[in-house]
Amino acid sequence: MNDTFLKACRGEKTSYTPVWIMRQAGRYLPEYQKVRSKVDFLTLCKTPELAAEVSIQPVDILKVDAAILFSDILIPVEAMGMKLEFSEAKGPILYDPIRNDVAVSRLRSIKAVEDVPFVMDAVKLLVKKLNVPLIGFSGAPFTLATYMIEGGGSRNFTNTKRMMYQTPELFGALMDKITDTVIDYLQAQIDAGVDAVQIFDSWAGVLSPVDFEAYALKYVQRIVSALKGKAPVIYFALNGSAMLRLVRKAGADVFGVDWRIDMADAVNALGGDAAVQGNLDPCTLFGKKELIRERVKGVLHGAQGAKGHIFNLGHGILPETPVENAVALVEAVHELSSR
Amino acid sequence: MNDTFLKACRGEKTSYTPVWIMRQAGRYLPEYQKVRSKVDFLTLCKTPELAAEVSIQPVDILKVDAAILFSDILIPVEAMGMKLEFSEAKGPILYDPIRNDVAVSRLRSIKAVEDVPFVMDAVKLLVKKLNVPLIGFSGAPFTLATYMIEGGGSRNFTNTKRMMYQTPELFGALMDKITDTVIDYLQAQIDAGVDAVQIFDSWAGVLSPVDFEAYALKYVQRIVSALKGKAPVIYFALNGSAMLRLVRKAGADVFGVDWRIDMADAVNALGGDAAVQGNLDPCTLFGKKELIRERVKGVLHGAQGAKGHIFNLGHGILPETPVENAVALVEAVHELSSR
Repeated sequence: MNDTFLKACRGEKTSYTPVWIMRQAGRYLPEYQKVRSKVDFLTLCKTPELAAEVSIQPVDILKVDAAILFSDILIPVEAMGMKLEFSEAKGPILYDPIRNDVAVSRLRSIKAVEDVPFVMDAVKLLVKKLNVPLIGFSGAPFTLATYMIEGGGSRNFTNTKRMMYQTPELFGALMDKITDTVIDYLQAQIDAGVDAVQIFDSWAGVLSPVDFEAYALKYVQRIVSALKGKAPVIYFALNGSAMLRLVRKAGADVFGVDWRIDMADAVNALGGDAAVQGNLDPCTLFGKKELIRERVKGVLHGAQGAKGHIFNLGHGILPETPVENAVALVEAVHELSSR
Repeated sequence: MNDTFLKACRGEKTSYTPVWIMRQAGRYLPEYQKVRSKVDFLTLCKTPELAAEVSIQPVDILKVDAAILFSDILIPVEAMGMKLEFSEAKGPILYDPIRNDVAVSRLRSIKAVEDVPFVMDAVKLLVKKLNVPLIGFSGAPFTLATYMIEGGGSRNFTNTKRMMYQTPELFGALMDKITDTVIDYLQAQIDAGVDAVQIFDSWAGVLSPVDFEAYALKYVQRIVSALKGKAPVIYFALNGSAMLRLVRKAGADVFGVDWRIDMADAVNALGGDAAVQGNLDPCTLFGKKELIRERVKGVLHGAQGAKGHIFNLGHGILPETPVENAVALVEAVHELSSR
């Protein structure tokens, strides 16, 4: 078992910088496309054998130091009682968006082992086969709330913010229910065998710092506290790079960093208590191999002062990315960081 | 003439904090909708009397301390030789996107006085009627380049970044042409009578700091240098709040700040040489008046250490915003900042 990734999560010394790639199991890989061509996206998420198969692909092909479970952050939301659909054009659609207290009270806090057993089954299959650690994950409460309130993606998140500002108790009740679900969901993944968990706060960056502190942060803190000591927790607040001194209050073991900040500035803002993960611009993989190497060097250098560093992109790998450049990235990280 | 706004641009003392609102001439105003219902968007931009009329509306209705010319950042791009269309569903469309050297060489650097005379005519009408300063504007070269390369809006800007990374000379040639156009365009607006200019870098935030410095910053610096001493220049790099120490190198008189950063942190990162503009979350205007006042207080307090402060939202006002809340915002800024 290659445990370099886990050592870096804990801030222990490693002989090189471990690397994995957000969305590494995904559309840029022909091997993924082949599996996906036979089933729709939700079926892929819900079929343990197939989810496990595509989760392993990038470990074999790219030689990354960790696998991440193939799934979607809205899986537990569906289990809470919302009708979920993935549209090729529009992305996720959640029917009957949550806008009032009746809708909130109808939602269930899930028991993941019973309600989404296929996730735990995929985890169990994976841990038998993998020779690298497996990362489980969940959306963060605020991010899940935006999908539930908006009914899908959004441009300005006005429904979410209206609820926050105009009926803060209702918003709080929704966030509490989601938080209970996320804790149960991540705990179940850990019980099934994942080695670490990542909390994706993909829409944290639509909040001003004052709103992030008032409406989002404490729920992440509750999740981190509940899981403390059970498995390393990575918290990734996308587009939150201008408020990292607040983000660090989440208390995670590792903080994901997007590509909008110089890594040295991020390390400085996050302080010395946590490891960092990131932060190459995914589009760098459209450049030549020399550019990729040069930029990898820059990120490695910027992270030198961190307690630990897990190399990653600053956002998910893009569907059009040439696979050979993703391979070159992993090679460059391993080679250039060898100590 | 109320020159509070201009004093703040220059970092001089003012008896209260001046305020204007990005997109203040726009869809949230019934008076604007009335004018717009008679003509399409581009015709409105190109008809000096109508453009002037909608530019004045928010000054009368909201009592803001500056007007901004009603126009669109793609107006000079059309004049450079691209076919432009505004689709209700998709936003701006630029036909035959710029992807190779033939396309770049075909583009003209414009003479604004001859090529977009309606802009200067609107300015001349406005300066006769206004009792507050008039702000002219342009898109920044990188932002305009993204529209020209992508052919409109984009999610990941992969075509732009591909050109940047794979054919940097071609990208540079395009940026040079755009920069020449922007300088001529802003100079013509100043000659026609605008009192200050804002450079909107709406997509600067898709660049990592290292790319911003390599591919975007120097062109803004060239524009700022060319206009130095002619009129105050405001530079707004949207979603660039995590790299303000780089952004400040643009050398502008005022820096716009989006809502993703605490204003005190922004002032700190920008240093003491420039004034700041911003940075209330536009969605705050969906809250109650007490919330608006409280958040205005926070921004005013955060900006205390700045050389000068112009209050604004951290992005354009949203179409669904209640007008009375925009009025309440301006009142709150004036009252709470009175010295």
